[in-house]
Amino acid sequence: MSVDGSIRTARRLRGLRSSAIRDLLALTARPDVLSLAGGLPAPELLPTAEIADAAATVLRDPAAAQYAATSGRGDLRAVLAAREGERLGRAVHPDEVVVTHGSQQALSLLAQVLLDPGDTVIVEEPAYTGALQVFHAAEARVLPVPLDDDGMDTEALERLLAAGERPVLVHTVATFHNPRGVVLSAARRRHLAALADRYGFRVVEDDPYGELWFGQAPPAPVASWSDRVVRLSSASKTLAPALRVGWLHGDRRLCAAVELLKQGADLCGSSLTQAIAAALLADGPWYAGHLDRLRGTYGARATALSTALAAEFGDAVVSSAVRGGMFTWVRFAGELDTAELLPVAAEHGVAFVPGTAFAVSGDHGRTARLCFATAGEADLAEAARRLGRAVRALQHRTARA
Amino acid sequence: MSVDGSIRTARRLRGLRSSAIRDLLALTARPDVLSLAGGLPAPELLPTAEIADAAATVLRDPAAAQYAATSGRGDLRAVLAAREGERLGRAVHPDEVVVTHGSQQALSLLAQVLLDPGDTVIVEEPAYTGALQVFHAAEARVLPVPLDDDGMDTEALERLLAAGERPVLVHTVATFHNPRGVVLSAARRRHLAALADRYGFRVVEDDPYGELWFGQAPPAPVASWSDRVVRLSSASKTLAPALRVGWLHGDRRLCAAVELLKQGADLCGSSLTQAIAAALLADGPWYAGHLDRLRGTYGARATALSTALAAEFGDAVVSSAVRGGMFTWVRFAGELDTAELLPVAAEHGVAFVPGTAFAVSGDHGRTARLCFATAGEADLAEAARRLGRAVRALQHRTARA
Repeated sequence: MSVDGSIRTARRLRGLRSSAIRDLLALTARPDVLSLAGGLPAPELLPTAEIADAAATVLRDPAAAQYAATSGRGDLRAVLAAREGERLGRAVHPDEVVVTHGSQQALSLLAQVLLDPGDTVIVEEPAYTGALQVFHAAEARVLPVPLDDDGMDTEALERLLAAGERPVLVHTVATFHNPRGVVLSAARRRHLAALADRYGFRVVEDDPYGELWFGQAPPAPVASWSDRVVRLSSASKTLAPALRVGWLHGDRRLCAAVELLKQGADLCGSSLTQAIAAALLADGPWYAGHLDRLRGTYGARATALSTALAAEFGDAVVSSAVRGGMFTWVRFAGELDTAELLPVAAEHGVAFVPGTAFAVSGDHGRTARLCFATAGEADLAEAARRLGRAVRALQHRTARA
Repeated sequence: MSVDGSIRTARRLRGLRSSAIRDLLALTARPDVLSLAGGLPAPELLPTAEIADAAATVLRDPAAAQYAATSGRGDLRAVLAAREGERLGRAVHPDEVVVTHGSQQALSLLAQVLLDPGDTVIVEEPAYTGALQVFHAAEARVLPVPLDDDGMDTEALERLLAAGERPVLVHTVATFHNPRGVVLSAARRRHLAALADRYGFRVVEDDPYGELWFGQAPPAPVASWSDRVVRLSSASKTLAPALRVGWLHGDRRLCAAVELLKQGADLCGSSLTQAIAAALLADGPWYAGHLDRLRGTYGARATALSTALAAEFGDAVVSSAVRGGMFTWVRFAGELDTAELLPVAAEHGVAFVPGTAFAVSGDHGRTARLCFATAGEADLAEAARRLGRAVRALQHRTARA
């Protein structure tokens, strides 16, 4: 779908299109397709009973049905600030937190606060598509820095800076990267923070998956090492997407600027879902147990998917080791193009996101992102088998052509 | 609060400020102040028990806790399309409705779809402040057209058009105007629609209050007379603000463009609050009874406030007749400046919004907007008495100065 000339549209939107991949994926939303394409939490782990109970409790006060403060309910900002403080090892004041409508809104408002058209933004290659969408809408000049198994290559970033690039911000999904699944090493976190301080850019540490570690906790956030880091996170992966509770943690002036823009964007968030999130997050023992369940289940699923892929493909597919989050990144040997594979896979009842969906300027044609969080272990194994059949079918067709 | 140079901010935000009035009103948020300043529904009429029950019911399906489609849940779009169709007297397809995060988001996304910097937008004078905020953020050229007791003066609009003005859109709160309380007459609705067709602009019919009529239903929407009209509305005033359920009704291409922008803005709305709204709106008999209660209570309160103002001020205050909605607009005789009155009123335990908050270019210094929806009849009477004492105190101070 494109915003075309048949309605009068603003200049900067004329080139904006829904991605071809998104349109392709829409075709895979059939009940018979095992989709590893989305980034959806496991439905059976969504705490629906706890949410319903919390709703009943908080709605005893009609304030939970009224307008909220634009920056978010005070009780939620307090619990988020306390949790952020624990992660960072320093006190965080509730005024340094703004609650947003998912972390996507935080990123979108942040881009509006910080970016003029033509400003340079550095992203990881491959990149989170939602971030690319925001930076393209802001008409930013988007430069990629490659990722490897230790996350963003900060040496490559330093070379860009030394060569004169002056980004306004550097966006990173440092922990359990989307789509690559990797973790930025502790040394690179310090390096990135030091570069931010030296060159005066902001780091946007986009961290929706940081609590979903399997074996051991990830290194301390990049924000531990510099106050030029703005952290974004969300309750979508740990509680439920439908709460639409995201947040931004940054200095007070930045928070005030984001709040001012949010007034015009949507007045305020939902006091109901914010009160529910505050109640669930404030119940420390329950939340700790809930995170344990998520970590245990997702860890087992990540292993099940890797095992099934190895059994199906052997050396023909390389998948990165997964230490947390929701995604496995795979690379097919040979000439296989995953964008061509997708429609064939859908015929065989399985879906994924081709690597090209996450491309900035690199070639990711032989790669794919698989989400192991949504489906159970048996379905993941069946998905790997269907993927194998789809690959063989595509190779057969290609050979005949 | 201003977005100042101490953080690097985008060019177009440098002049953006929270209004002085908003800052003043923050000072009146004390428990001892009877505030007629907000636009909040009566807390005791918020259907909190029904919302909690609906939450428990819809959460039996985990889909109510997952991500929603960007354009909104299908069940909600269907019921909204059906209700819109009833209002307009023609079939409305669910694809012609996009659910937004309150109607403020609909207005904000719509402005991003339609407006380039420098484009002309016509608003009513005085205007809804949230619309002014959106149009200023879009760097539009904002021109006012005066309002009278029959709503927007469409003859004045026609003179502007005849003189060569070519607005991209004309914004109107045609029914129970915020802040003026008036209703655009049926004849002027037809005239406005005809002008849109003749001159090729879009009308944005911003209609959050249309169901809150007291004696008799308002005329058919402006959108009944032209398909160049985009309708915005919301469940905030009729169900609860915390659902953050607003919507836009327009042609499919416009809806698709708004949906595309919403992907980048916040991915999607809350499937939980959308499912709750769908359940409550689909329960026709309950919703009809609920609207009856709102209409009855708000109608009685509007009368109580007018009566109390007349008893307190006599001819010194003129208040418009109120036929629905949430607001009474008052004009003080003499030299009284309502922006000066506000801090004195707060000292006396009452708050309102001075008319200047809604000014485009006109002088509204002797006027004020009073919300009669939030407080009960006894409190409204007491608020009028406190306002009387505040006016006398200000006049006394002025006389002494």
